[in-house]
Amino acid sequence: MADLEHIQLAHGGGGQLTSELIEQVILPSLGGSQNPRILSDAAIVNASGPLAFTTDSYVVQPLEFPGGDIGKLAVCGTVNDLAVSGAIPLALSFAIVAQEGLEIALLRRLLESAGRTASVAKVSIVTGDTKVVERTAGEGLIINTAGIGRVMDKARLGFDRIVSGDCLILTGPLGEHGLAVMSKRKGLSFSADLVSDCAPLHELTQALIEKLGPAVHFMRDPTRGGLAATVVDIANASHCDITLEEATIPVNKTALAASEMLGLDMLHIANEGKLVAVVEESAAKDALAILAKFAIARRSAIVGKIGSSSEMPLVEMATSFGGRRVVQMPYGEDLPRIC
Amino acid sequence: MADLEHIQLAHGGGGQLTSELIEQVILPSLGGSQNPRILSDAAIVNASGPLAFTTDSYVVQPLEFPGGDIGKLAVCGTVNDLAVSGAIPLALSFAIVAQEGLEIALLRRLLESAGRTASVAKVSIVTGDTKVVERTAGEGLIINTAGIGRVMDKARLGFDRIVSGDCLILTGPLGEHGLAVMSKRKGLSFSADLVSDCAPLHELTQALIEKLGPAVHFMRDPTRGGLAATVVDIANASHCDITLEEATIPVNKTALAASEMLGLDMLHIANEGKLVAVVEESAAKDALAILAKFAIARRSAIVGKIGSSSEMPLVEMATSFGGRRVVQMPYGEDLPRIC
Repeated sequence: MADLEHIQLAHGGGGQLTSELIEQVILPSLGGSQNPRILSDAAIVNASGPLAFTTDSYVVQPLEFPGGDIGKLAVCGTVNDLAVSGAIPLALSFAIVAQEGLEIALLRRLLESAGRTASVAKVSIVTGDTKVVERTAGEGLIINTAGIGRVMDKARLGFDRIVSGDCLILTGPLGEHGLAVMSKRKGLSFSADLVSDCAPLHELTQALIEKLGPAVHFMRDPTRGGLAATVVDIANASHCDITLEEATIPVNKTALAASEMLGLDMLHIANEGKLVAVVEESAAKDALAILAKFAIARRSAIVGKIGSSSEMPLVEMATSFGGRRVVQMPYGEDLPRIC
Repeated sequence: MADLEHIQLAHGGGGQLTSELIEQVILPSLGGSQNPRILSDAAIVNASGPLAFTTDSYVVQPLEFPGGDIGKLAVCGTVNDLAVSGAIPLALSFAIVAQEGLEIALLRRLLESAGRTASVAKVSIVTGDTKVVERTAGEGLIINTAGIGRVMDKARLGFDRIVSGDCLILTGPLGEHGLAVMSKRKGLSFSADLVSDCAPLHELTQALIEKLGPAVHFMRDPTRGGLAATVVDIANASHCDITLEEATIPVNKTALAASEMLGLDMLHIANEGKLVAVVEESAAKDALAILAKFAIARRSAIVGKIGSSSEMPLVEMATSFGGRRVVQMPYGEDLPRIC
């Protein structure tokens, strides 16, 4: 390879340089030697029954942040979208758009991180694509992953299964991902112990479905838009009011301090390793017991309740001070390029 | 929506503006009203048996070019990767990374084009993602599509099925896509009748497999890197020499003139609506008869032969002037951001 240290436009040309990049950098870093078919136009996946299919592009800046990087995030994000759909992840695609000038050593690190995360999530990266674009500002790498998963036989999930009385479970404190990424941004340098929660959630979701089956009514990971966006979506789609209890929401004190310093609402900040599960009231304690066995969900709590049905559903939070406030969908974007 | 005319960073925040963009612009343009599940974390696809799974990102500049645009290209490219794998496309994902400032009217046109192409290719766009990044130079939109297809029962495709004596069929003239895109680039303004060949190939591949079954040994669409990259890949992976006959390769005279003006080798230029099929010698005439029924493959021809097996396989072209030249994998990139 001509320049072994930086990506060149020519690496995206589909010729010998592209092949060398794929064979010498991308496949070994991703652990692709186990996936020889990755070089074909399409991978063959053997599957049957209902499959979940999802995609996300990742544009996070900077590419590496405390607790993760764009490679880990790109695998977790798509694994988690499959997981909250009640599916066991089977196969991922992995497409990169690199900017000219990207350091190949950095690219390797990010791909190795993606490969490691895929292996933790027990999913194979089976197909991919590599494009190169001109250099602009910033560290340039965009990753898209799509994923296929097998929907578990016992899964009965959907907005239409949510009913009044259901409990809303959250698996840990809010805001760690968004604030950890912000902590690395230019001009900001708050506390060092703020680490992204970025993690695959497949073990949590599989354990809940396996053990509680149809008592789990709905699951989602509160990423962009935070818990507020997730809960308002749930209220609107299920046509039910929701009440959150602020005092029950697990808190990371560093994250809370950081959000207060920045004037951000913790309910709006992105998480990448948290699960929101809507569970039948009678199964809520069992759900907490199941979740407590997983390190990433040790601080799980019932943080809210599905209220009565309503044409104009409202999400309210009973505050720690005894008041009530309306929780709204965030309007725009507090933190750009957070995932 | 605050500014109805241009994409803002806040459109990528996962809040109300993102929802409005998705519901008011993206879904109606893509024709997504038929796909209400597109708003969930994952779509459910019912499928069984071996599935083909593939992905590509599209970074073409400009976003609209004679004969196509990035929306059409993003659907065709992934449909074609499934098609050449012997699969019937079932479902596509569609993820956009838009730059701040992108005109929403342009975005609508591009998405409508993608939606129309998906409907021609009889495939549903079932899941998606929307991100926004800061403005840089150029018209900013990157699209990623991933696709799932059902592998046809009669398909028996693979490098390992290619044998000496097989015929190499090409379904039409080379270079139209790459040169049509170049014709729109700044500073270049050659002939107006140069139009991208961008088209879905699923009908061609399905007809070949349906009628000839295992006599079709391998298929690929010669995109980035052109026919040269495809044929060198075939030679290397099948460990067989290949001879191309220049006189039999269909020619678009405008494209040829343009490539000569630019000093480009037609064998290296990207195509987006051509198929290379490696077919058993005894079935080659039948294959041509099948292909001749499709407008986009009217000029199909046998352009080469698989030669004897070799440790160091060589691709040679017998030129129209009676000479022979070695065909090599292009090294880097003659035409950046062509797909």
